[in-house]
Amino acid sequence: MKIRIIVPIVGDRFNREILKEASLCKSPDTEIDVVNLEKGPESIESIYDEYGSELEVIRRVKEAEKEGAHGVFVDCFNEPGVEGARELVRIPVVGGFKPAALTASLISGRWSVVTTLQSTLTRIRNLSRELGIDKNIASIRWVDIPVLGLHDKGQLQERLLLQIERAVKEDGAEACVLGCTGMLGIAKALSKEMEARKRPVPVIDPTATAIGYLELLIRSKISQSPLTYLTPPEKERLY
Amino acid sequence: MKIRIIVPIVGDRFNREILKEASLCKSPDTEIDVVNLEKGPESIESIYDEYGSELEVIRRVKEAEKEGAHGVFVDCFNEPGVEGARELVRIPVVGGFKPAALTASLISGRWSVVTTLQSTLTRIRNLSRELGIDKNIASIRWVDIPVLGLHDKGQLQERLLLQIERAVKEDGAEACVLGCTGMLGIAKALSKEMEARKRPVPVIDPTATAIGYLELLIRSKISQSPLTYLTPPEKERLY
Amino acid sequence: MKIRIIVPIVGDRFNREILKEASLCKSPDTEIDVVNLEKGPESIESIYDEYGSELEVIRRVKEAEKEGAHGVFVDCFNEPGVEGARELVRIPVVGGFKPAALTASLISGRWSVVTTLQSTLTRIRNLSRELGIDKNIASIRWVDIPVLGLHDKGQLQERLLLQIERAVKEDGAEACVLGCTGMLGIAKALSKEMEARKRPVPVIDPTATAIGYLELLIRSKISQSPLTYLTPPEKERLY
Amino acid sequence: MKIRIIVPIVGDRFNREILKEASLCKSPDTEIDVVNLEKGPESIESIYDEYGSELEVIRRVKEAEKEGAHGVFVDCFNEPGVEGARELVRIPVVGGFKPAALTASLISGRWSVVTTLQSTLTRIRNLSRELGIDKNIASIRWVDIPVLGLHDKGQLQERLLLQIERAVKEDGAEACVLGCTGMLGIAKALSKEMEARKRPVPVIDPTATAIGYLELLIRSKISQSPLTYLTPPEKERLY
Amino acid sequence: MKIRIIVPIVGDRFNREILKEASLCKSPDTEIDVVNLEKGPESIESIYDEYGSELEVIRRVKEAEKEGAHGVFVDCFNEPGVEGARELVRIPVVGGFKPAALTASLISGRWSVVTTLQSTLTRIRNLSRELGIDKNIASIRWVDIPVLGLHDKGQLQERLLLQIERAVKEDGAEACVLGCTGMLGIAKALSKEMEARKRPVPVIDPTATAIGYLELLIRSKISQSPLTYLTPPEKERLY
Amino acid sequence: MKIRIIVPIVGDRFNREILKEASLCKSPDTEIDVVNLEKGPESIESIYDEYGSELEVIRRVKEAEKEGAHGVFVDCFNEPGVEGARELVRIPVVGGFKPAALTASLISGRWSVVTTLQSTLTRIRNLSRELGIDKNIASIRWVDIPVLGLHDKGQLQERLLLQIERAVKEDGAEACVLGCTGMLGIAKALSKEMEARKRPVPVIDPTATAIGYLELLIRSKISQSPLTYLTPPEKERLY
Repeated sequence: MKIRIIVPIVGDRFNREILKEASLCKSPDTEIDVVNLEKGPESIESIYDEYGSELEVIRRVKEAEKEGAHGVFVDCFNEPGVEGARELVRIPVVGGFKPAALTASLISGRWSVVTTLQSTLTRIRNLSRELGIDKNIASIRWVDIPVLGLHDKGQLQERLLLQIERAVKEDGAEACVLGCTGMLGIAKALSKEMEARKRPVPVIDPTATAIGYLELLIRSKISQSPLTYLTPPEKERLY
Repeated sequence: MKIRIIVPIVGDRFNREILKEASLCKSPDTEIDVVNLEKGPESIESIYDEYGSELEVIRRVKEAEKEGAHGVFVDCFNEPGVEGARELVRIPVVGGFKPAALTASLISGRWSVVTTLQSTLTRIRNLSRELGIDKNIASIRWVDIPVLGLHDKGQLQERLLLQIERAVKEDGAEACVLGCTGMLGIAKALSKEMEARKRPVPVIDPTATAIGYLELLIRSKISQSPLTYLTPPEKERLY
Repeated sequence: MKIRIIVPIVGDRFNREILKEASLCKSPDTEIDVVNLEKGPESIESIYDEYGSELEVIRRVKEAEKEGAHGVFVDCFNEPGVEGARELVRIPVVGGFKPAALTASLISGRWSVVTTLQSTLTRIRNLSRELGIDKNIASIRWVDIPVLGLHDKGQLQERLLLQIERAVKEDGAEACVLGCTGMLGIAKALSKEMEARKRPVPVIDPTATAIGYLELLIRSKISQSPLTYLTPPEKERLY
Repeated sequence: MKIRIIVPIVGDRFNREILKEASLCKSPDTEIDVVNLEKGPESIESIYDEYGSELEVIRRVKEAEKEGAHGVFVDCFNEPGVEGARELVRIPVVGGFKPAALTASLISGRWSVVTTLQSTLTRIRNLSRELGIDKNIASIRWVDIPVLGLHDKGQLQERLLLQIERAVKEDGAEACVLGCTGMLGIAKALSKEMEARKRPVPVIDPTATAIGYLELLIRSKISQSPLTYLTPPEKERLY
Repeated sequence: MKIRIIVPIVGDRFNREILKEASLCKSPDTEIDVVNLEKGPESIESIYDEYGSELEVIRRVKEAEKEGAHGVFVDCFNEPGVEGARELVRIPVVGGFKPAALTASLISGRWSVVTTLQSTLTRIRNLSRELGIDKNIASIRWVDIPVLGLHDKGQLQERLLLQIERAVKEDGAEACVLGCTGMLGIAKALSKEMEARKRPVPVIDPTATAIGYLELLIRSKISQSPLTYLTPPEKERLY
Repeated sequence: MKIRIIVPIVGDRFNREILKEASLCKSPDTEIDVVNLEKGPESIESIYDEYGSELEVIRRVKEAEKEGAHGVFVDCFNEPGVEGARELVRIPVVGGFKPAALTASLISGRWSVVTTLQSTLTRIRNLSRELGIDKNIASIRWVDIPVLGLHDKGQLQERLLLQIERAVKEDGAEACVLGCTGMLGIAKALSKEMEARKRPVPVIDPTATAIGYLELLIRSKISQSPLTYLTPPEKERLY
């Protein structure tokens, strides 16, 4: 099966790491490739950033379907363009938030998100309400590091641990979701460290759950519902 | 006070009627003008259509603030670009759905939406969940007329009455919200006809509630919360 | 348009200040007058206090309609008599809580109430559940000052700031609603101070949102639904 | 133990039947007496009717406590005066709705209310939301008979059966609550008839559950929480 | 009336104290006896423990019905076997959680549970969601004492007070439910002590509310709904 | 990876078909084997049936972990024994309901379940509330065929289509979940037929989503949270 990962930003700085992470959690017969946008933001940290990527995401998703991809992962926790893309193609399209949120709800009673900046909180809350699982969320926290600062893995790990520990102790979280798909290659270490601290919580990397969910959908031969995502009516569109 | 109405489509076919409707429900000291988009869809009937208008909406909202508008109405029930615009300006920005939904919740216990096409249902449901008032909604119905067919007022009125009556009888609606800002100049007649049929329900025109809410916000000197809509971080954006 | 404010207590000690506040947020063509009760409590701080004012509120609301008022504001956050009055007149009637709560839900994702005494908490929670927006409430706090002590503006402001700051920091509030219509002329100063403290939250004065909502309803020519508030059956009533 | 039933209307027309019903479901050591109001409505069928009885209910509840009653049942499904009375006495006070609604939630997954007139629907919905069990309600239906017409038991039974059957078949109800405390002495027959029709649903008489709940509270020595129902502050009250 | 208490564990160590507690809160014409299991766990502190008692509970419930009991209390907060037993007998069957949770919702706006060990939290949360009253719960806390350590009443009382006080102060609880039916004979003392500390909260003993609810159901002649708990189809069952 | 399917009934009548279905949706490197219970019911159609299988499920799950399985699917929509098993092993354990329900929530806005008999409805509702996604459920319907009658594929398909069509038309479902893991090899045909009828809804087979979810969890190296499913305390257990 072929999965196309669309990183909805300009620049390929995350691509290598994304491919590595995806390779670790994909099944052996899955082929994955990664593309970026030609126009768009450098990172997604606000709703405004999403607007700058959505039409490009659409273009990339249609291209992916045409080129034979069996499913598409729009590689961002905020899921820019996902709802609209689902109206236009019949292959399954997923973003970062929903597969992670549903998986967290399967393995725990209440869970927290730890994201990058406070500026993404509103979108995450909106997504959790749309999905109808908001009562399972213990809290939404942030490390106060912008996406483009996530390469400092030492700093990232330290701040994530701080917030995860507070989520468990103060908010009653029983699992944690990393709230940015750029927090790569770090979930297992966090999980282990929390276990060492006697607060054993699963830490969910949204890349892994997105790839896993796409494989589930593709093998089950199901996709987004045509009744939820109706084909947009024909009309003139000047864009 | 100055209110700018941004009709998030190309073409000015609705402008005259919008201005007329807005004039009927505005306060005497309110000045209203209407602008359209240079690029975008002819109408908003899907999430994909919204993507095509959002960046242009942003541009128009910033322009409005710069030109001294005290508030902006993004004149579409689906509210394209509203959440993002709120991150970028400090004057209040509202769309069509939320002012109408909140007003309906003030005047009735449960209410229905009657929209144009089934293809807008998912977005309306998402907005109602975001707003946290979804338990007040009795049903979302549609007349199966595209936006560009709304000029046939006879057909529109007949089909709206059919759906409003079913909403009241079958779904328990106690008020109805017209689910498209293009259903202009018709709410009062519907309301009267329902009263004649012994099912007296208020029918809410989203243009009227949007203008009214903007006046409320502007006179109260409050706007969207800077903590809900944080300013997007500075960064390169290729769009 | 004529709006009648009914302050549901005996004594006119708040009237001048109410008129002043209302004048600041009303539109130029709105005439406002204020009346009190002949019988009733000195202030509303419990459900029992509400009982003592409800029939008098009804009498005053009917009188207002008869005298040509276009809308009525029952000037108390707890909304004594509002639901019953809506059964008896066809002009719109609003209280203090609902317009403020809906406006807070429009401009922020989660918000807190800061009220006078703990003894009003149950009523506020009940109103928020009735309105169906309780999931938007971050917390209900109080300053521990009775209504008749609110004239000490220095003390009031200090305690409100303390609670607003805690609501933002500890409860995640993104906006605040003043939980008593007697907290007059202070919202803007609080909002400014919070901005200076780098926690910029809109502070909503329930008088302003009530007046604004009435104007919205009157201009839109909509009122409470006759299906939600049916006319009480004819019968003997010994009161 | 002594239970005082306060029928919150003028006139004793229901008293004999109430006492009979209460006697059938009380425990042998419980003494029950019944009182009415000196002022108030003839029946409660609207929120306005409630206002006319609340202060009198308060007076009667305080009198009951003073005279040694261990608990009070305000004998009306709409519960006029109950919340306020709870602020003023320390013996348990219950109305008709909440004990019935909680019991229905204990014995079934989803249940319906069948009340007298549509004009009581809003109050019942408000009570169910206040209590936090609204998601257990399948529907609220009515027989369209005013309280003072309930003595025609033949008509009443026929219409109740019609609505109960529709609640089960169309709304998925698994139990039914009689939505007026004046629907006396009829629950068992309804329940039997429904069993004969192969739709065996428990039918709950709110008088029985109110008496039962009071006995539960009195024997358990618990009453309404002083933190939910704080004592109203001392002040002048002209009523 | 005859009530059978089934303590769903092996060993009769709690029986005498249970009988004593039940005797204090039952009505004079109620006869109560207590039985244990022949096989099963020593105490219920996990979902796994429940599995070990369920079939034995079923056997005991059927036996009780056959022997003329009018109702059954499965004497454990976690309610092992209750849902299944309700499918098999027509006399009312209750466990510990639901009667206590419903009573707490009647007497307060929000309440907390204080249980034994953290390992029972998931089951309590699941039960509260099943019952549809989870929004009334302020928090679930634990004293970190296993069931078999509850005989040390001094330690138990001290730790319960600590958690109850924190529930009131930090979580906004207005009533507390003891989250284990083995916390016997202590509720009144806790309640008194909390009153002395100026945080007067009712403390609910689940044994008292279970007995009270059974009496309510038996006297009202209602039982679990046959439409919620359908009789299991006939088939081969090798157990 | 090795997945063990535990069919929680006696008799292997479904095993061949289960293996076939699982093979169609598994990834190439996944080895699957199937086991049954030595004691237990012939099928699961009630809560009582679940009790008869839970301890045997536990035994089989522990055996699976010991024998090197990486994950376990308890092959029943009602999920008997799953919550308890999760307390005892560290490999992921899933049942039929939750993976299907979460997947349906990912691909559609509202969805229905079509199960075998009405007697399973209560359990399905309870599971949906536990999982916190109940607001996404449009309806729960049944074909009125017992599990052991499912081999008549013609009858099954006809009745499923009838219910699926009604779910879409009357309840607003946008996807359907087959509510029994014994409805094997039929989902695709139903989906195609619904498309031919111009009501294109995805039909979800719970076997496929369970296998897919296990692969997701195993590859992501995450399992049920040790904080949600704490290890049961050591004690004597006579079973």
